[in-house]
Amino acid sequence: MTTNEKALLLHEEWKGKLETISKTPVKSREDLSLAYTPGVAEPCKVIANDKEAAYKYTIKSNTVAVISDGSAVLGLGNIGPYAAMPVMEGKAVLFKEFGNVNAFPICLDTQDTEEIIKTIVNIAPAFGGINLEDISAPRCFEIEERLNELLDIPVFHDDQHGTAIVVLAGIINALKVTKKDKETCHVVVNGAGSAGIAITKLLLSYGFKDIIMCDRFGMISRNTPDLNWMQKNMAEVTNHTNKEGTLADALINADIFVGVSAPDIVTAKMVASMNQDAIIFAMANPVPEIMPDIAKAAGAKVVGTGRSDFPNQVNNVVAFPGIFKGALEGRASKITEEMKLAAALAIAGLVSDEELNEDNIMPEAFDARVAEVVSKAVKDHIK
Amino acid sequence: MTTNEKALLLHEEWKGKLETISKTPVKSREDLSLAYTPGVAEPCKVIANDKEAAYKYTIKSNTVAVISDGSAVLGLGNIGPYAAMPVMEGKAVLFKEFGNVNAFPICLDTQDTEEIIKTIVNIAPAFGGINLEDISAPRCFEIEERLNELLDIPVFHDDQHGTAIVVLAGIINALKVTKKDKETCHVVVNGAGSAGIAITKLLLSYGFKDIIMCDRFGMISRNTPDLNWMQKNMAEVTNHTNKEGTLADALINADIFVGVSAPDIVTAKMVASMNQDAIIFAMANPVPEIMPDIAKAAGAKVVGTGRSDFPNQVNNVVAFPGIFKGALEGRASKITEEMKLAAALAIAGLVSDEELNEDNIMPEAFDARVAEVVSKAVKDHIK
Repeated sequence: MTTNEKALLLHEEWKGKLETISKTPVKSREDLSLAYTPGVAEPCKVIANDKEAAYKYTIKSNTVAVISDGSAVLGLGNIGPYAAMPVMEGKAVLFKEFGNVNAFPICLDTQDTEEIIKTIVNIAPAFGGINLEDISAPRCFEIEERLNELLDIPVFHDDQHGTAIVVLAGIINALKVTKKDKETCHVVVNGAGSAGIAITKLLLSYGFKDIIMCDRFGMISRNTPDLNWMQKNMAEVTNHTNKEGTLADALINADIFVGVSAPDIVTAKMVASMNQDAIIFAMANPVPEIMPDIAKAAGAKVVGTGRSDFPNQVNNVVAFPGIFKGALEGRASKITEEMKLAAALAIAGLVSDEELNEDNIMPEAFDARVAEVVSKAVKDHIK
Repeated sequence: MTTNEKALLLHEEWKGKLETISKTPVKSREDLSLAYTPGVAEPCKVIANDKEAAYKYTIKSNTVAVISDGSAVLGLGNIGPYAAMPVMEGKAVLFKEFGNVNAFPICLDTQDTEEIIKTIVNIAPAFGGINLEDISAPRCFEIEERLNELLDIPVFHDDQHGTAIVVLAGIINALKVTKKDKETCHVVVNGAGSAGIAITKLLLSYGFKDIIMCDRFGMISRNTPDLNWMQKNMAEVTNHTNKEGTLADALINADIFVGVSAPDIVTAKMVASMNQDAIIFAMANPVPEIMPDIAKAAGAKVVGTGRSDFPNQVNNVVAFPGIFKGALEGRASKITEEMKLAAALAIAGLVSDEELNEDNIMPEAFDARVAEVVSKAVKDHIK
């Protein structure tokens, strides 16, 4: 049986991967009077006088909503809220299994930006954080930005920032392996959707100076037509010499390629045209922009993908559980750029100098230290 | 330490009474590939082609949202969504502990009827049912009615129907004890909010003919000023001779009093003015409309309250877990009047003729049979 066949059968057996359970048994009248009426009125009264006490007495202290409108699910596209549920349940499971953070999936039966924002604001009281997931660009940017203004709990679009954090973590270690310098590296990011844009922003925050973004039509510059508002913003802070041309043109003398785009669009020839000891993050899933063996044969030094069957898997699961764990424990009201950078450094730091080599730049997803160090890094950067 | 003090301490210890857990461990790359990517894409694709498959592969099959806007919480009033959380968490706990139904609390940061309706419609895809809770009247009537039109999953306002079902169950058994006949009983329902109205409606559905509703100003008739739209509807189907006067006037020669109102408003004298073998359901909480010993001394035969420290506790917990269990298992799209009546009869039927007496008309809340028989009764009445 293939993994896919097995997964389908298991999903039928599970009938939902998530369960809600009580932390306290209710087996007697006394139990009932403590967990429910009349005793429950006591914490209610305290919270009615002081909203902050919700963190003391309710699930808000350790519960995240995993929210999608089903508009950009995995590689499946706009499959809607019902079909998005297995992914959101899976994400909620990972929050708990990796970060010991409770999470509940909410799939929205609307793809209207204003309705999404209003709905999330309306349901926020139960939650300590909002993890947005699989919402299509450019709506995802506005939704996240507006929610972060409207809510006093952290709102984090994992397709953007989770991906950006793990890519930066990988790049930090790849720079060590190749002895390249962020200040002088030429970086090409292919894919100008939510992940590509967030990666570019975070690389700039980290100190990279020279980044060119590409989409399917080639390099993005200030002259590129038909950009959305966020891509226009990015054109202002990347591609400083306003170059035009194809992805192949962009890769000539580049040091780093980050692909969040489409299978098999990078050739051996393109890799060969890059600078020595090139760094490749080919994260299209399940088929990367270029297969690691081909990239290596063409001269790449470090190759990462989204896949677990090659070295250097770049997997969000090393980021989001620890990030929310830290944000919740530290009662952060936002996930700031400083926290994201700290998280990336913490993830990179889990690979010791002795362990570090071109085929081992990322910590193992199941390394129990991961969520701990990421959470600590995030907490240390709460203002 | 009092129960209330203990409850407050425990709530602080619990930091939320609910936990979300994974039904499947994620300890290896294979686990991850089955519960999450790439395997998770398989159920997504099936659901994208057939929305119904959500019941086969997701938590929708066995998960209820417990939703409140915090406008009418317990006896505490309009304390808002944050302060309502402990109650909604407690309710979610009871769903699981009594009915093995997963439930998640959603407290809404809006009290606008239209926004509440839109928000609930928007978040419905994850859920198999909506339990509305502690929403003030008359908004609760419109919200429930409109949601039942808009959604294809059951929507059930427990303060109305859960209460009505357990009261009817108690009355069914009280009629047996007193050998009174529903067709000829004079019934007085005091309290014209959500519970009082729902009780009156269900008693009419069951076959009671002569019911008078009262509010704090006395009997409700077609001439009563300042009624809301639902109270006006009720005035059309109750109080057939359009009587006016006080609660005391209404109780003269009444057979049954149902109070969902305020403490200590029924006197011994009023009970003494009722017909022989009067039936009293004094459900104001924690202090009933009349204390059982006083009512009994004044001539009442059967007295029920909402309290666990007197006989005949009338407690919603014998109704809502089984009702949703049955509705979910049977894939009901609505909770119909037939299901409510069947549930009440099933609850009443749990007290055998041998056990039945004036101080034992209700099944024990912790009787494991309760959710089973209620769920079966509901399932048997799905069309």
